[in-house]
Amino acid sequence: MIDRLIQQIIEKKNPSVVGLDTMLEYVPEHIVNDYGGQRIDLEGAANAIYEFNKAILDAVHEYIPAVKIQIAYYELYGPYGLEAFRKTAQYARAKDLLVIGDIKRNDIGPTAKAYASAYLGETKLKKGAVRVFDLDFVTVNPYLGSDGVMPFIEICRSSGKGIFVLVKTSNPSSGEFQDLNVQSAKLYQRVAAKVNEWGQELIGSTGYSQVGAVVGATYPRQLEELRKIMPNIFFLIPGYGAQGGGAEDVLGGFNDDGLGAVINASRSVICAYMRSPWKERFSPEEFSEAARAEVLRMRQEIDSGLAKKGIKPW
Amino acid sequence: MIDRLIQQIIEKKNPSVVGLDTMLEYVPEHIVNDYGGQRIDLEGAANAIYEFNKAILDAVHEYIPAVKIQIAYYELYGPYGLEAFRKTAQYARAKDLLVIGDIKRNDIGPTAKAYASAYLGETKLKKGAVRVFDLDFVTVNPYLGSDGVMPFIEICRSSGKGIFVLVKTSNPSSGEFQDLNVQSAKLYQRVAAKVNEWGQELIGSTGYSQVGAVVGATYPRQLEELRKIMPNIFFLIPGYGAQGGGAEDVLGGFNDDGLGAVINASRSVICAYMRSPWKERFSPEEFSEAARAEVLRMRQEIDSGLAKKGIKPW
Repeated sequence: MIDRLIQQIIEKKNPSVVGLDTMLEYVPEHIVNDYGGQRIDLEGAANAIYEFNKAILDAVHEYIPAVKIQIAYYELYGPYGLEAFRKTAQYARAKDLLVIGDIKRNDIGPTAKAYASAYLGETKLKKGAVRVFDLDFVTVNPYLGSDGVMPFIEICRSSGKGIFVLVKTSNPSSGEFQDLNVQSAKLYQRVAAKVNEWGQELIGSTGYSQVGAVVGATYPRQLEELRKIMPNIFFLIPGYGAQGGGAEDVLGGFNDDGLGAVINASRSVICAYMRSPWKERFSPEEFSEAARAEVLRMRQEIDSGLAKKGIKPW
Repeated sequence: MIDRLIQQIIEKKNPSVVGLDTMLEYVPEHIVNDYGGQRIDLEGAANAIYEFNKAILDAVHEYIPAVKIQIAYYELYGPYGLEAFRKTAQYARAKDLLVIGDIKRNDIGPTAKAYASAYLGETKLKKGAVRVFDLDFVTVNPYLGSDGVMPFIEICRSSGKGIFVLVKTSNPSSGEFQDLNVQSAKLYQRVAAKVNEWGQELIGSTGYSQVGAVVGATYPRQLEELRKIMPNIFFLIPGYGAQGGGAEDVLGGFNDDGLGAVINASRSVICAYMRSPWKERFSPEEFSEAARAEVLRMRQEIDSGLAKKGIKPW
């Protein structure tokens, strides 16, 4: 799947992915009105969000390699929301996009296996098994160590799918534990070393591993440093756009081949129609065109940044 | 809520909670047959699991203060599973049990807020808001630092609900990162210090904080040590039973008042009918009686252990 992600990046000439962190408050009125308007309930909200996501996917799928879906914003609407998550993932895959489930799951071995089965693998029934979410990649939290990660890696091994392990996250307090000095290194560096180790046996034909890492755009120095010590590890880089990371901040995440990273932008794309400069040009009815305009602007921005560094990958 | 948990512990004379980590393979044939037998699908599996949980809750609710529901085993059955999770929580609360959602969620601030709203708080709609899962406690992973935990704490502050932050987990590789030496301490000790700090302003009338900690039964020495340095913090102790922790291993988690800890047992209770000595005494149709027998045996075991240490809390 990492090879397919790379192929898609090259084909679409774009290493940026769209984060579908859709909340009801982002959905324009004309869609909300179709699902109950002011009296919308959880089921209506979940359906309105799915409708919104479909329009965004229709508008941007030609220009991006993958989407990242943050499951928290679906759990917010309960089982209906989870169904909207499942259908959104399915719709994206039908458009040939790779789907990264931003689930940050973690638990002891047998429980991690249940998560891995649900999101990447299959659920056993009495006769046979069914794929429930069937995502291509998920994010995983490393606090529990190897045996919380191994069940995911085992499914990667048998299915070709992939994971991104949280190494250095994008949020302000990410240093509170991640930057603590442990024996001659910082904790996130120790996690990075472990990710390297976990990833070595799953390196695909493109030279990158199915085991990736999450490294926030908001810590550009660490991003550059991690790029050097994890050459075969693909990075999922959140924090671009609404979280404050800019194009120059993410460039350190790329290798000289122009690969090695996908940059995620969520609110800056899906809420583009609510923000300058796009809100002056697009009406709320044109929210998906605004999202496309922002996707193309962002692609251009990253492309120029790479070119300035002398990297011309496509 | 921590005060209500303590009140329930004293009333039921039992600090042990039952973990509803229910998978289809644990559900006896006579229930599976009602939902499709060999041809059971995801929806049938979720309904069979809910049926199983209800029978367990009917049989044990008089003897336990709370249940812990591990959400991974529900996500395994997709949106249907999540609905079974929601209904199980609701059924348990209707029986006056407190509900601990073992969700181990973690993310950057705005996303953690979505999780906290879904599981402890309420989901905003266009007019007003609804409670989706309405649990009493959830477990939280600390890897992202304060701003991944604060949204949960804010809801605790306004609602009286509680959290248990992972400090020292019960799994074999929990030491991989948690035991690393950071500036003059181990990482889990630094997390413990932070939990202490987070918890100080939310101490209830019983002297314990709404901010608790997860500390595994499988590391009794650390449990004892943490008990000393976190006197106001209530512990959720997993790892008893199927994971290998025994009564003597968990005793260090209690304060001299006999409080300060709830011990969770999952498979040893819900699968009691499949295991010695109970499988010799109960048929699969009597799975809930077997669960009750194991709950009472466990209560007795912990009670004797506490008495041996000179603690006679009830």
